[in-house]
Amino acid sequence: MGRFVIAVLPGDGIGPEVTAEAVRVLEAVGRRFGHTFEFHEALIGGAAIDATGSPLPPETLERCRRSDAILLGAVGGPKWDDPTAPVRPEQGLLGLRKAFDLFANLRPVRVFPALVGATPLKERVVRGVDLLFVRELTGGLYFGPRQEAGPDGEEAYDTMRYTRWEIERVVRLAARLARGRRKQLTSVDKANVLAASRLWRRVTEEVVRREFPDLALEHVLVDAFAMHLIRRPAAFDVVVTENMFGDILTDEASVLAGSMGMLPSASLGESPPGLFEPVHGSAPDIAGRNLANPIGAILSAALMLRYAFSLEAEARAVEQAVEAILEAGYRTRDIADGETCIVGTREMGEAIAQRILH
Amino acid sequence: MGRFVIAVLPGDGIGPEVTAEAVRVLEAVGRRFGHTFEFHEALIGGAAIDATGSPLPPETLERCRRSDAILLGAVGGPKWDDPTAPVRPEQGLLGLRKAFDLFANLRPVRVFPALVGATPLKERVVRGVDLLFVRELTGGLYFGPRQEAGPDGEEAYDTMRYTRWEIERVVRLAARLARGRRKQLTSVDKANVLAASRLWRRVTEEVVRREFPDLALEHVLVDAFAMHLIRRPAAFDVVVTENMFGDILTDEASVLAGSMGMLPSASLGESPPGLFEPVHGSAPDIAGRNLANPIGAILSAALMLRYAFSLEAEARAVEQAVEAILEAGYRTRDIADGETCIVGTREMGEAIAQRILH
Ligand SMILES: CC(C)[C@H](C(=O)O)[C@@H](O)C(=O)O
Ligand SMILES: CC(C)[C@H](C(=O)O)[C@@H](O)C(=O)O
Repeated sequence: MGRFVIAVLPGDGIGPEVTAEAVRVLEAVGRRFGHTFEFHEALIGGAAIDATGSPLPPETLERCRRSDAILLGAVGGPKWDDPTAPVRPEQGLLGLRKAFDLFANLRPVRVFPALVGATPLKERVVRGVDLLFVRELTGGLYFGPRQEAGPDGEEAYDTMRYTRWEIERVVRLAARLARGRRKQLTSVDKANVLAASRLWRRVTEEVVRREFPDLALEHVLVDAFAMHLIRRPAAFDVVVTENMFGDILTDEASVLAGSMGMLPSASLGESPPGLFEPVHGSAPDIAGRNLANPIGAILSAALMLRYAFSLEAEARAVEQAVEAILEAGYRTRDIADGETCIVGTREMGEAIAQRILH
Repeated sequence: MGRFVIAVLPGDGIGPEVTAEAVRVLEAVGRRFGHTFEFHEALIGGAAIDATGSPLPPETLERCRRSDAILLGAVGGPKWDDPTAPVRPEQGLLGLRKAFDLFANLRPVRVFPALVGATPLKERVVRGVDLLFVRELTGGLYFGPRQEAGPDGEEAYDTMRYTRWEIERVVRLAARLARGRRKQLTSVDKANVLAASRLWRRVTEEVVRREFPDLALEHVLVDAFAMHLIRRPAAFDVVVTENMFGDILTDEASVLAGSMGMLPSASLGESPPGLFEPVHGSAPDIAGRNLANPIGAILSAALMLRYAFSLEAEARAVEQAVEAILEAGYRTRDIADGETCIVGTREMGEAIAQRILH
């Protein structure tokens, strides 16, 4: 039976509430399957700025370095909301991605049958949707050379830069995942305009044709994909794309799942620790009120079990517990729709944990 | 009564079919309101590459320069589909935007009552949607310094660069349009990550607070906006954003209107000629088969009447004819849904032109 060390970075807003439920669920998994999870909390984001002046203090980095995986809540909030301030909560998250070279961000978007009615889309459109986005996470506009506008604010730029090697590694990872699923890989770019996208398309084509000839590969332009994602989401399986496009498209895809609060993510590098966090933000408007949906965080814990600890049966147990609790009618406010039982963050976490134990 | 010279650039795929219907409708407007429109065809895109080797031949540029407005169909197709080729159809379009400094791309997204059932979204979500996107069109990643990957393909980049002046002029134009509508302006950026977006946000804030204090201005991050656009599209009015974000978001928004085939656009500079074209592409799969929806092109002609010729009543007449014909049940294949009358490209154009005349 395993022993795993997990750094818990609750962060800001609803972060502490949802990570607490993910921890609760991991403890239930430990009890049921006989594993030991050791949790160590550390500061990040706005909370870290307030306490230390830095959004990613050295102690936090050190704590993560000594862990097998990182569980993160969310960062940011109105208190630190000036996007032009020199020190910002998001820098904590971006710093973590860079420090551990977390180049691949996995964002599964699965539509639970119980929630097909909870979306702005018609049921026939979302039924059966099961997508896996693989977003490149340490390159492109996020980390390329940039120039802030000076005090007179005359000009600023960011650079979307990619090297062959950066593209190869994330495409390989996506292709391996596609192999274990429906063997269908969609690469999204803007090759009709961008030089970085032309390189992206060429390298993707080469890697997949050479190393994964069993996969069906298609290239779709990002603008067209943003449309198809809503028109016919069930047509896609694994979708690989660069950092900025992935940021936009995965938030867009959240409408399919009924709520951003449902979506988990895993950010992986060549070696541990990986970072596991819900896709949603810190939602300051509902923070501290037991209203947040903890399922994104709980499903992120499932991804941790699967990708960080190779505990597939345990990951499935969590995912099945979530599915069963949704079937039973439990809903947080964001996914409530008609005759269901509206519960709080804690009650949802407890129900899922109980389900795992029994 | 006016006399207007229009350069018609049919381009590729369904381009010639849909521009023919827009011309038919303009002729009907001319007859009804007593204007003279003089049309001159010229080559662009793949058709121009085949004929001259260049996607934007000098004669085409010259023809446009001597016109009051440009009507364009679409460019591109499988024949020229290698995005890594040195000469590509899209360069014709991008070249035109740059040559006439068409910095503001207006993309209205209006949901016609007759089509609320034709979208993947629930009726309550799309009913009453009436958005106007203003996309910056000559800056950012599209035109910033770039480096193509060399033959060994090791590295490539594009630059998202904005100057204060580029932001000011497009925001001003958007704010003026917002003033004539619901006085609500949404600016979309990624200021929590990008330096260019931080400048965008700061300049937008300054221009609107100083020159348009009567407008309600909100800033939304591009990832969140991609979600809200589907969840609550009726909450927005005028949306201004940079080039690449605008490209993605306006294609995404097309799902609200039932089909990309419904959407028009106007690209405007400081002085004529402006460029008017449907948002859809060349749709090679249905080209030459009388299947394309000409409404995007016809509504682009309406935008030409409004923005290039200041013929507001004439523009309205076209828009009302489109609405009436949709109410009467006419549908091209892309918007057909249930008991309606499926017609071809020509029949749709004729019906709308007839409606204007009677
Ligand atoms: C908070 C922000 C920097 C971050 C990003 O843009 O990557 C977030 O939107 C995400 O998708 O994880
Ligand atoms: C064809 C292409 C270059 C163009 C763009 O990206 O601007 C198109 O997608 C558009 O939106 O007009």
